[in-house]
Amino acid sequence: MLTLEAKLLTADAFAPFGDVLDARTSASYPINAGRTQRHHDLAKVETLGDNAHTLINIFVSQPVSLPLSLTFLERHPQGSQAFMPLRQERFIIVVAPPGETIALDEVQAFVTDGRQGVNYRAGTWHAIQSVLEREGEFLVVDRGGDGNNCDEYPLDVTVTLAQ
Amino acid sequence: MLTLEAKLLTADAFAPFGDVLDARTSASYPINAGRTQRHHDLAKVETLGDNAHTLINIFVSQPVSLPLSLTFLERHPQGSQAFMPLRQERFIIVVAPPGETIALDEVQAFVTDGRQGVNYRAGTWHAIQSVLEREGEFLVVDRGGDGNNCDEYPLDVTVTLAQ
Repeated sequence: MLTLEAKLLTADAFAPFGDVLDARTSASYPINAGRTQRHHDLAKVETLGDNAHTLINIFVSQPVSLPLSLTFLERHPQGSQAFMPLRQERFIIVVAPPGETIALDEVQAFVTDGRQGVNYRAGTWHAIQSVLEREGEFLVVDRGGDGNNCDEYPLDVTVTLAQ
Repeated sequence: MLTLEAKLLTADAFAPFGDVLDARTSASYPINAGRTQRHHDLAKVETLGDNAHTLINIFVSQPVSLPLSLTFLERHPQGSQAFMPLRQERFIIVVAPPGETIALDEVQAFVTDGRQGVNYRAGTWHAIQSVLEREGEFLVVDRGGDGNNCDEYPLDVTVTLAQ
C-alpha cells in the first residue's frame, strides 16, 4: 500500500508524464488583428498504430471521495490523452512513467487548481479521471484506431490532499 | 452589406459547416466502472497536407461590440478547427459553406448558449472568434503542418442578436 499526498501541479514536475494546459503560464502571440492571444501547440498529440486518428470527446465524471483509493493505474500505449476542465473543476492526478512495470518510488500524485488541464503522453500510467467536490465535465482529446490501447496495472495507492 | 440576426445554434442547422460539441445533446456510454460517461468522437478532426498533425491550443479573446461588423470571413483549407469555451462563454458564429467564393444567401449567423462548442470543417468559411460580453478562453484543436492554411474572403456582414 502506497500513500501519497497530492502536490500542486506544475509543468516542470509533470514534464516526465506529459503537458500542462494553462494559459496563465504559457507563451502566446496575437492573432485576429490583436483581438486574440494564441497559446500555440501546448500539448503533443500522439496517435500511433493502424488507422489512428484524433478524437474529441466530452467526459462527464462523478466526484471521488477522499482519501482517494486506487487499485490500479492504466495506460494508453498508442496515444496521448488530454483532459481540459470545462467548469473550472479541480482533479487529482496519479501517474507513473511509461514502462512495462511500475516502480512504487516513481508514482506521483498531483492536484490541479481548476484552470489547469493535462495531456498524458502515450504510455504514461495514470489513474482514471478523479474529479473533486462535484460532477466534472472535461474536453478530452485522445486517439481512435485499431488494436488495444488500454492496459491496467494493479497497484494499491491512497492519495490525500494537504489540509 | 449583409445583415443577419444570429439564430440559436443547433447541431442540425450547423451540420453543413461542422460539428457542435455539447454533452447535453450527444449520446454517451459508461467507462471507468461507471464513474464517467464518455461522449465519444464528437467532431471530425481533419489534418491534411504535408507534415500535418493535431495541435491543442488555448485562445484568449477579447469581446466584440454589438452589432458585430465583419469585413471578411476566413477558412482553413487544410484542417478543421474546434473551439470549446472554458468559462461558459457565449460567442457569435458566422459561416458559409466551403467553396472558392461565398454566395451571400448562404451566409448564416448563430449564437451559442455558453455550453456549446463548435468544430469548423476544413474549408468552411467563418468569422474570427467573436466572444460576447467578456474576455473568453477557448480550448482550440486545429492543424499544424506545411503550406498555407488560411485564406480570407472580403465580405461586409453585420450581425445582430434577437432582443
